[in-house]
Amino acid sequence: MSLVAPVTVHKIIGESITESPDLLAVEEPLEIQLGFGPVTDRQQRSVSVTMRTPGHDEELGMGFLFTEGIIQRPSDIVSCRHCVQDSAKEGNVLRVELHPDVVVDWARLERNTFTSSSCGLCGKTTIEAVMALTAGPILSDFTVEPAILHTLPDHVREAQRAFAYTGGIHAAALFDADGKLLLVREDIGRHNALDKLIGAAFWQNWLPLSNYGVFLSGRIGVELVQKSWRAGVSMLAAVGAPSSLAVQMAQEAGMTVAGFVRDNRFNLYSEPSRVRLMQSA
Amino acid sequence: MSLVAPVTVHKIIGESITESPDLLAVEEPLEIQLGFGPVTDRQQRSVSVTMRTPGHDEELGMGFLFTEGIIQRPSDIVSCRHCVQDSAKEGNVLRVELHPDVVVDWARLERNTFTSSSCGLCGKTTIEAVMALTAGPILSDFTVEPAILHTLPDHVREAQRAFAYTGGIHAAALFDADGKLLLVREDIGRHNALDKLIGAAFWQNWLPLSNYGVFLSGRIGVELVQKSWRAGVSMLAAVGAPSSLAVQMAQEAGMTVAGFVRDNRFNLYSEPSRVRLMQSA
Repeated sequence: MSLVAPVTVHKIIGESITESPDLLAVEEPLEIQLGFGPVTDRQQRSVSVTMRTPGHDEELGMGFLFTEGIIQRPSDIVSCRHCVQDSAKEGNVLRVELHPDVVVDWARLERNTFTSSSCGLCGKTTIEAVMALTAGPILSDFTVEPAILHTLPDHVREAQRAFAYTGGIHAAALFDADGKLLLVREDIGRHNALDKLIGAAFWQNWLPLSNYGVFLSGRIGVELVQKSWRAGVSMLAAVGAPSSLAVQMAQEAGMTVAGFVRDNRFNLYSEPSRVRLMQSA
Repeated sequence: MSLVAPVTVHKIIGESITESPDLLAVEEPLEIQLGFGPVTDRQQRSVSVTMRTPGHDEELGMGFLFTEGIIQRPSDIVSCRHCVQDSAKEGNVLRVELHPDVVVDWARLERNTFTSSSCGLCGKTTIEAVMALTAGPILSDFTVEPAILHTLPDHVREAQRAFAYTGGIHAAALFDADGKLLLVREDIGRHNALDKLIGAAFWQNWLPLSNYGVFLSGRIGVELVQKSWRAGVSMLAAVGAPSSLAVQMAQEAGMTVAGFVRDNRFNLYSEPSRVRLMQSA
């Protein structure tokens, strides 16, 4: 499957029209199926359907399962591959076989989708629920110079395979203190791009990512902070704005959040000390 | 509750830093609870938790329930209000009481969240499932001139209350053939902004919206086409790019999709005849 698909468009400039070929970011559903339970009583269950750009599906699946708290370490997974039962599936069903010893917390997974909680839902309980999945506030000596952050938008853009063609696909990138990009993942969904990145790092046993930063091409919602916290990321930098709850959660997490990273400037919303400035705050 | 929340940020320009007040788009969870069933055997169930920007929550709830196929007409709703059972909820639980005669298709709702489908998931089945919720392809004489579409980005931006302050909130706007904006709704989530818009139109008995267009501030994913199709919208115009599946679904729906609507130009991906050009295609 491809990241991009050809299309013929009518381009309108002012009042004139021309017909021309163009490329679209591919969007297809991916279903994640879990195989779990003891060898003598093996079961299966579908846990998620997400609209995603095909590619790195195994990483997307592992990143999703890890950030949702279903798996903890690479050895929890026995196998992770596309289902080939039916040729009509077109690579859109991912089958993940868990180790027989893994106990799945279904209640936690369902809370995130079909909730059964009673009155009392608020930002505070959201943060508390996420905190329970993490090892507490992030402790890290990771720091970067502003010049490093200023370079990220262009560097990530250059590394994106699909954006240049379509103008419509998000990126998540893992960077180190020198601004070197260790991983870049793309998806039409911001959450999927980050799940792919975290899944790749998870599978390579790089977690926690406390000595790295993650750069995002879009805005920072609370769920992106949640996933990053779970992976131990010490700095989240993005081209767009963070939300109120994203900043609240980042403050609880001890995570540095930089927003509007573009045009040689950015704003710091939490833990500014990880950005090494010549003038101090 | 407010659309925006105050925050103190460290602004970095080049290597210099200043501390200054700023505003963030508010993001808080909203739980939608349904009350349903005959008077003699009334039941309740939580159907969704979404991260949203507070405001127009009733419209968000109705738009979600309508676009998911749970309700069909305003008279299906007996009441729709925030739950006041617990003062800690902070306005984040919406209780929707359905008419006793409304039969809820739980299987349909669950398919969209916790799916139980077997191998066979693909773009084609996605489109077929959505088609079953609609009245078939959209039939409409709605047309606009290119000049009308060129004006939309600025007009919608001016009408957005929260974007000017935060730079981080999406808009969905309903426009007529003259480019007049009938409704504008904002949310940190693109899908929520559209649900609010459709919910408002639903409650005012304006559906189907076949003589209107909807303008979106972001990209066009397939779920935005799905919601618009369900509401009978004949034209979807957006600042960003559509996905491959969004275009496929729009072609099935007979819906005009315009992307990259900015800087006096745009691309048409489907049903270009609804844009009246001096030169024909």
